[in-house]
Amino acid sequence: MSAPVGNALIGQSGGPTAVINQSLVGVIEECLRSERIKGVYGALHGVKGVLNEDMIDLGRESAAVLEGVANTPCAALRSVRMKPTEEDCARMLEVFEAHDIRYFFYIGGNDSAETAHILNEIAVDRSYDVRLFHVPKTIDNDLCVTDHCPGFGSAARFVASALMGDNEDNRSLKGIKIDVIMGRHAGWLTAASTMAKVHDEDGPHLVYVPERAFDLERFGQDVKEVYDSLGRCVIAVSEGIHDAEGKLILESQEKDSHGNVQLSGTGALGDFLASQLKEVLGPKTRIRADTFGYLQRSFADCVSEVDADEAREVGRTAARIATSGEYQHGSIIIRREDDPTYRAAFEVTDLENVAQKTKVLPERYLGEQGHISPEFQAYARPLIGTLKTPMHLSDHPISKRGS
Amino acid sequence: MSAPVGNALIGQSGGPTAVINQSLVGVIEECLRSERIKGVYGALHGVKGVLNEDMIDLGRESAAVLEGVANTPCAALRSVRMKPTEEDCARMLEVFEAHDIRYFFYIGGNDSAETAHILNEIAVDRSYDVRLFHVPKTIDNDLCVTDHCPGFGSAARFVASALMGDNEDNRSLKGIKIDVIMGRHAGWLTAASTMAKVHDEDGPHLVYVPERAFDLERFGQDVKEVYDSLGRCVIAVSEGIHDAEGKLILESQEKDSHGNVQLSGTGALGDFLASQLKEVLGPKTRIRADTFGYLQRSFADCVSEVDADEAREVGRTAARIATSGEYQHGSIIIRREDDPTYRAAFEVTDLENVAQKTKVLPERYLGEQGHISPEFQAYARPLIGTLKTPMHLSDHPISKRGS
Repeated sequence: MSAPVGNALIGQSGGPTAVINQSLVGVIEECLRSERIKGVYGALHGVKGVLNEDMIDLGRESAAVLEGVANTPCAALRSVRMKPTEEDCARMLEVFEAHDIRYFFYIGGNDSAETAHILNEIAVDRSYDVRLFHVPKTIDNDLCVTDHCPGFGSAARFVASALMGDNEDNRSLKGIKIDVIMGRHAGWLTAASTMAKVHDEDGPHLVYVPERAFDLERFGQDVKEVYDSLGRCVIAVSEGIHDAEGKLILESQEKDSHGNVQLSGTGALGDFLASQLKEVLGPKTRIRADTFGYLQRSFADCVSEVDADEAREVGRTAARIATSGEYQHGSIIIRREDDPTYRAAFEVTDLENVAQKTKVLPERYLGEQGHISPEFQAYARPLIGTLKTPMHLSDHPISKRGS
Repeated sequence: MSAPVGNALIGQSGGPTAVINQSLVGVIEECLRSERIKGVYGALHGVKGVLNEDMIDLGRESAAVLEGVANTPCAALRSVRMKPTEEDCARMLEVFEAHDIRYFFYIGGNDSAETAHILNEIAVDRSYDVRLFHVPKTIDNDLCVTDHCPGFGSAARFVASALMGDNEDNRSLKGIKIDVIMGRHAGWLTAASTMAKVHDEDGPHLVYVPERAFDLERFGQDVKEVYDSLGRCVIAVSEGIHDAEGKLILESQEKDSHGNVQLSGTGALGDFLASQLKEVLGPKTRIRADTFGYLQRSFADCVSEVDADEAREVGRTAARIATSGEYQHGSIIIRREDDPTYRAAFEVTDLENVAQKTKVLPERYLGEQGHISPEFQAYARPLIGTLKTPMHLSDHPISKRGS
């Protein structure tokens, strides 16, 4: 089965990451090198750009611009939150035919894999030869098959660095601190809050993820226990925590005008939990809540080098595999070599193994209620890069003179 | 006037910064070197530690621990928010006498300068020879006399990097984004949100600081104008914005159980402004708000090198000047040399020039309503260090085929 000759089109979709443009540039680099690819195009705002024929010529960008773009956070092609209908997909195929698009690379999460999957089925029906590849990205780290997702390492590094500082802040001025971290269905990023812990009494002291049902009363007791013992408590909470019936904790509290609960871009969950704790611990207790928000996925000054390198390689691999002719379609995955020193291998899996599926934290990474197991840290350590080591004074006491 | 021989005591106060421990270690280093200083002590939790005689021996720390501490964010001696009464200050003097404290270094904001000022007056009254020095720190950059405050450069770097990413995020997925930044009385840190702008259409597109009265209706119009023109709008807002009567924008909206408006550690202001904009622009408009919170002052992975170096030197200068015998008391200031290349000189000013005074953004750094002047950027540029340069694609269009 030989690979077709024609143009390549690339799109970016969903919430951006700090390294999503590394994957974009990885795809472009390898496409420019391939004899089977004539033009390298970009669709602006993902599938929306395909539907509207809003496309740009990426082959005319200089190597210097591409390198600069690779190091710029968020989607250089601009992004979209849109799940195309079957009709949309049929229309996209028409655009592909009109522009002789023979390769389509969609950089995104499991919805993007699903889009590529549907496109592939329609293309097969029409006998239009186009190679459809999903290039994974997501800070949520919740794609199946792959060991981890490009974008996660940098976001996890941000969360770990934030919690390191926040723990020191809370140690400086004691009280209760709640940090709300992204993750609707999976707690990978919230679990990364534990990565900067060095000293026994370092926070976060409690960690709540969507993999475990959240009980508001139990939460109050957990916090009180830590607070009574240490005089302070740092808490990391996934935005998607929910009760035993699967109802989001905020669901009964606040809805937007469409009746949807808005999780990101609002401080509502943190403020709600803070108000609940005031009821348990008394109104004079110093309780603060921060919602990390979009900084987690877009911060310009906190990138994991491993993550950046892997995001680039995932893009390159997609273009290499597509033009090899060996596969009609697929999703790129990272396999962790079984080796004491961390090494990643880049491979391909079927789109349907990734499309619309979510990988949550496995049981072995979860500790007892409110805790994350050390096994998670062994998993995540190589992905976030070396962190600062916070150092504390030894606190050799000076004898009181009883003055 | 020769400097006394005795022990030195150091304390840290107020909201921590990413480099406040550089100043601590700077003071320790020079104290250890001085023949006039016998023991170097630390007071835990600032003046509270003095009052309770909770002191530790800093002379027993190794150079490696001290260097590690210098690079750890937040107050290694732990901090306090406490303004001692005259009675407290008298009691502190008793502790000084009991422990032969002849040098007291208080690292903090303008309240700490005031504490040192009061202590000095009581010491003079009692003819107890103790040298009282204020070592400046604050992310708010609002201390008088000094060109800028240690701690500001790193916090400003964090805010600039956050806005760089947030602008790219907003460009990827269009809509309105509100970022709430620390600063009750002065807009220095919020102004730093403009430092990462490179392209004409980069955000923040609107910047609101406490130096200008905030009009909610005018705000809605400003945002609508930008949104109609660009299809998006990034807004940076100081937590301390207030109306023409000086009333905080949130004051009429939300109060805590003591009737105080809580600004930090809550998403209330951002969420309130977002709800206001929904009324102007319609409920379907994508509007998000992030409150940067404590990350601004404590983040472990975003330090300005200039800021770290200067914070260390400010501490060293305090100890050098104190032990020189030339001054009885004072506050350390940074003077910017009149030189095309940025250079800082470290000097001393009277405590009363700094105590309880606040320096707001001068008129020349403010642009028209909602804007910051380029002069501010020239001022702040050397303090935050080199930032990434975000790079955009050239967007060479592919002709539509009208398929």
